[in-house]
Amino acid sequence: MSREYEMAWLEYRNAYRISQNDDWFHSIVLCDENEELRVVREELKIFAEEFFQIKPRFYNKPLKKRKYLLVGRIDALPFELKIDQDVHQEGFILKSVRFKESSILVLAGPSNSSIIYGVYELIKRTILGEDLNQVNLVSNPKLRLRMLNHWDNLDGTIERGYAGNSIFFKDDSIVVSNRTKDYARLLASTGINGIVLNNVNVRKAALKLIEKDYLPKVAKLAHIFNDYGIKIFLSVSFASPIHLGGLNTADPLSSLVAKWWREKAKEIYSYIPNFGGFLVKADSEFNPGPHVYGRNQAQGANVIAKALEPFDGYLIWRAFVYNCMQDWRDQETDRAKAAYEIFKPLDGEFAENAIVQIKYGPMDFQIREPVSPLFGGLEKTNQILELQITQEYTGQQIHLCYLGTLWKEILDFDTYAKGEGSQIKRIIDGTVFGMKNCGMAGVANTGDSVNWTGHDLAQANLWTFGKLAWNPDDSLQHILEEWIKLTFGSEKTLLKNLSHMLMNSRKAYEEYTTPYGLGWMVNPGHHYGPNPEGYEYSHWGTYHRANWEAIGVDRTSKGTKFTQQYHSPWRKVYDDPNSCPEELLLFFHRLRYDYKMKNGKTLLQNIYDLHFKGVEKIEEFVKLWNELSPFIDEKRFTRVKDKLQTQLENAKEWRDAVNTYFYRKTGIPDERGRVIYP
Amino acid sequence: MSREYEMAWLEYRNAYRISQNDDWFHSIVLCDENEELRVVREELKIFAEEFFQIKPRFYNKPLKKRKYLLVGRIDALPFELKIDQDVHQEGFILKSVRFKESSILVLAGPSNSSIIYGVYELIKRTILGEDLNQVNLVSNPKLRLRMLNHWDNLDGTIERGYAGNSIFFKDDSIVVSNRTKDYARLLASTGINGIVLNNVNVRKAALKLIEKDYLPKVAKLAHIFNDYGIKIFLSVSFASPIHLGGLNTADPLSSLVAKWWREKAKEIYSYIPNFGGFLVKADSEFNPGPHVYGRNQAQGANVIAKALEPFDGYLIWRAFVYNCMQDWRDQETDRAKAAYEIFKPLDGEFAENAIVQIKYGPMDFQIREPVSPLFGGLEKTNQILELQITQEYTGQQIHLCYLGTLWKEILDFDTYAKGEGSQIKRIIDGTVFGMKNCGMAGVANTGDSVNWTGHDLAQANLWTFGKLAWNPDDSLQHILEEWIKLTFGSEKTLLKNLSHMLMNSRKAYEEYTTPYGLGWMVNPGHHYGPNPEGYEYSHWGTYHRANWEAIGVDRTSKGTKFTQQYHSPWRKVYDDPNSCPEELLLFFHRLRYDYKMKNGKTLLQNIYDLHFKGVEKIEEFVKLWNELSPFIDEKRFTRVKDKLQTQLENAKEWRDAVNTYFYRKTGIPDERGRVIYP
Repeated sequence: MSREYEMAWLEYRNAYRISQNDDWFHSIVLCDENEELRVVREELKIFAEEFFQIKPRFYNKPLKKRKYLLVGRIDALPFELKIDQDVHQEGFILKSVRFKESSILVLAGPSNSSIIYGVYELIKRTILGEDLNQVNLVSNPKLRLRMLNHWDNLDGTIERGYAGNSIFFKDDSIVVSNRTKDYARLLASTGINGIVLNNVNVRKAALKLIEKDYLPKVAKLAHIFNDYGIKIFLSVSFASPIHLGGLNTADPLSSLVAKWWREKAKEIYSYIPNFGGFLVKADSEFNPGPHVYGRNQAQGANVIAKALEPFDGYLIWRAFVYNCMQDWRDQETDRAKAAYEIFKPLDGEFAENAIVQIKYGPMDFQIREPVSPLFGGLEKTNQILELQITQEYTGQQIHLCYLGTLWKEILDFDTYAKGEGSQIKRIIDGTVFGMKNCGMAGVANTGDSVNWTGHDLAQANLWTFGKLAWNPDDSLQHILEEWIKLTFGSEKTLLKNLSHMLMNSRKAYEEYTTPYGLGWMVNPGHHYGPNPEGYEYSHWGTYHRANWEAIGVDRTSKGTKFTQQYHSPWRKVYDDPNSCPEELLLFFHRLRYDYKMKNGKTLLQNIYDLHFKGVEKIEEFVKLWNELSPFIDEKRFTRVKDKLQTQLENAKEWRDAVNTYFYRKTGIPDERGRVIYP
Repeated sequence: MSREYEMAWLEYRNAYRISQNDDWFHSIVLCDENEELRVVREELKIFAEEFFQIKPRFYNKPLKKRKYLLVGRIDALPFELKIDQDVHQEGFILKSVRFKESSILVLAGPSNSSIIYGVYELIKRTILGEDLNQVNLVSNPKLRLRMLNHWDNLDGTIERGYAGNSIFFKDDSIVVSNRTKDYARLLASTGINGIVLNNVNVRKAALKLIEKDYLPKVAKLAHIFNDYGIKIFLSVSFASPIHLGGLNTADPLSSLVAKWWREKAKEIYSYIPNFGGFLVKADSEFNPGPHVYGRNQAQGANVIAKALEPFDGYLIWRAFVYNCMQDWRDQETDRAKAAYEIFKPLDGEFAENAIVQIKYGPMDFQIREPVSPLFGGLEKTNQILELQITQEYTGQQIHLCYLGTLWKEILDFDTYAKGEGSQIKRIIDGTVFGMKNCGMAGVANTGDSVNWTGHDLAQANLWTFGKLAWNPDDSLQHILEEWIKLTFGSEKTLLKNLSHMLMNSRKAYEEYTTPYGLGWMVNPGHHYGPNPEGYEYSHWGTYHRANWEAIGVDRTSKGTKFTQQYHSPWRKVYDDPNSCPEELLLFFHRLRYDYKMKNGKTLLQNIYDLHFKGVEKIEEFVKLWNELSPFIDEKRFTRVKDKLQTQLENAKEWRDAVNTYFYRKTGIPDERGRVIYP
């Protein structure tokens, strides 16, 4: 293969796989009068050739007395399929049937894009060696919006990107290459159906993405991605009417502003009929917003949403609004409370095609935070759960940190908004409040590196994100097992070691960096590596306020009252250090270093212990990885080995810096006498 | 005036000045057969017109029975001047004589550029209202090299620049405008005779400054500056033979490399016959250097110096070499020791036209450091004292911080290298060791802001730097008084208040930031504002290692032994906390917070006290400035007022952050009960 990059789980390394399913791929019937299934055909061909080394023959009419694959829209099939389950617009059927003496494996869906998802499911099951003779499957995505947010800048850099440069942009131009299409394939194979191309911080040339300078080329990208069922969105500046329209205001209640957005929407859709909509970061970290004009967030969102509405476009509005110029001396203000305080009173005021996108926690993608109380707080507002696939605070794709475990906890978190069973996943799938335009957005961890994600094992995060967005009830064990098999192979040692490493990696990272919900002990700016007081005297509102005897912020009803933003029983559970989950203890409470934890040891000794333990886990990971050398090609083996080596060194640095920090604060040594640098 | 910038002390605001000297400016005789004194004529014309509103008449032959100004090279004068002092190549004579019934004020020097210095001296004395009828002055610069180092990047940004963008570069091009010439005038008027145009970190386009892409335009700049006696230097990358020459090595002992540098020098001098030479930052903070090839700093410098030697060019080699990837856990390594350890053994090995440029302190431009022991350590090596006029660590031209007081202390510091009288100023003027190619370099604080230096009062730093480089024995009181009179006027309140503010500003800054030589409690990266442990766990080698009971690094003979790099008596004086100057106590010693200081109070209480005191001084500065409103034009008054207001707020932030930091470490409150935030 002449590509300069690998195709992750679509690489079809057949060498280490055994599959009996090749007989379905010799003859393929496409019910495709208008060549709308072009990419389906292409994808099946690639797979058959690369995996089985066979050249499939394609037909457009049913065959007699044969075993074959039949693919088409449900309404275009030559016979009626009996199915006892609804098939959603993006869902598909994979079913083995007999028809006119033929054995037929039918792949069908209500739309062309739904069939694409089915193709990847079929390919996956084929590779995994499943018996498809008895298959009878209907698969529907549970979430409507399954989005990637790219924080790509037009100069080609990526904000918080750790996997090379942008796939979409270079030197203020849009790039269209073979890789564009391969990226669409990669994403479609996980079930993702929308991507925001550019950084939410819209600066310089990016302001003009919605102008005719760029729209024709954006349309080209959109066309490529649309083929794979993926819609294109753009991040726009709230001040666009000023920057681009020459208006002297961006006031959402100005009729001139409303008109400008309407005309802009019309113009964009004239280029891109399938355009997804806008993502807006407003009133947030120096980005302009409605606040400037004395308007609220709903007013700000609605003027743009209304403009998109005639075209079925979405307006996605980030809830990441807080005072980023806090004075550390101010102990009243609590950044954790900001989103709820600002958005809760506006519940019900957002337009139907407006969606509020909420970060998983009340702060900012730390390795451990409680779930944002805005989930469960908003009942009449469309919501997107925002996750960070890119590892800004979680090791920057140098550290192995599988985020599935973190996300699963969030999705399964029960808000009790309508009593038991009000989990986050039930809110964003529309069950709890009946809001349908909901979903999940992940900040992309991809770039133009050879393996897309910098760290080969970080591919698992992208895969898992897509799979959970399709079905948040899917088990991580299942998701991971499939990923490992597709990506590396089916050997037991591979499954055992990789599962162990991935499933334990987030906890390890938490342990050797900042346990108990502390967070923020990173170097300011780039956010890599330890700096225990790096943010302590800054304006970002992220303080732990450690002194000689205690640490943490009291966010209980006796402190900043953040706990009161939760439903019962959480407000009570979090309020008391005895009932508060220990992993969140220092997020909610200020405690003395000699506070006795459940295991009988002091808080301080537990902090020391966890830091030693976290590093030991990485030492174990290194060993486990080395055992895999017989099963993995040298390139990938060495790449990951090198990353793990760096991780181990950096984990030790974390351990030592944080332990030293607390030792220097308290003068209390480790009770087991391990090395803590003075 | 249509300029978009002001001319600082060359603004000739005649409104608030009284001078009786206009009668010298009606008739001016220039001994100038070849129009070599073009800029002298121009400068005198500008001054006469702007200051006296008279149009001088210029003659080329002596006048009879008249009072006039006579300007020319000594050997071109119509009569012999009797002077009893040597006039150096750059020195000048200003002398009132009678000749053929005329009263003549003679300004003469051995070279055209020396006359320029004389012109500015004459202008200054005229403005200040001195009686020139009896003047009889010979002025020679004491230092040979009086350099500005610009850290300007070719994209127009300035590393550590706080006064706008570059005057020289924009969008990877060289800018030549009226301002270029005005900048040359400004610098010449202070006595500066060399400038390095570009950043010592040579990256991207800057690599090519010594290629034909840029050389013709560099030559244009050189021409403009040469007219004012200023030579142009360039920063170059040690790896230029690789980047530009296509060689596969930059090994200084490679004959190919030597040849490349020789040819490069020849090429440059073919464009710029008066080219000054190169400045090189090698083996320093990720810049390439001879270390890569197992060669020492002298070998690295000499290969380039040799190439410049046929053209009388200088090779200036920075001594800022240290391990910038230190592990904070390593308590053996002491960054302060690096320069001495590396350069002392090479003393005498540097070529004659090579000069080692040494930062004033062993660390990096902190508000208080001891003088680098490399001064006095090197006896057979040309040396330049490197100062930072731009206020990287000293308030970034937001804070008023007059650096003359700091510089004067350094210049007057007696190294005792050859017994008493071995002051820094006597080393760099050649007296102590007889090395002649020495001098002072200041990192420029100028940019394209309206007042050149961002803060109007920061102009005093540029002025003072130039004046001290001309004569390090000049008194600050004298230097400042002249600057205030030229820049603002002669009113007593102006002199009193401004002198007080400027002379006390450095001490105030030290007090409310980091007293006792602590340093480094700044935000990493941009270096503005407090972050007491910002650098504590980093790789830069800048640690204070504060814990619950003590702070500071033991650099004595019992610690890292840094003190042993000094001559007696300093090694002993610094070694003992009782004899160590208190302002450097925590640079040399690790002390408990309850250490009793000379005033009977603890170290901790003194730290608290100084922080409160420092802020009080800024409150006083604000008052003193406000008293000046009647004497200063509104623009400048408001600009400085705004800066002082920000300084006051930021000084309070510093006070509170540092006090809180120590309070949180110790739990010991201020004994006077003032507010320390918990």
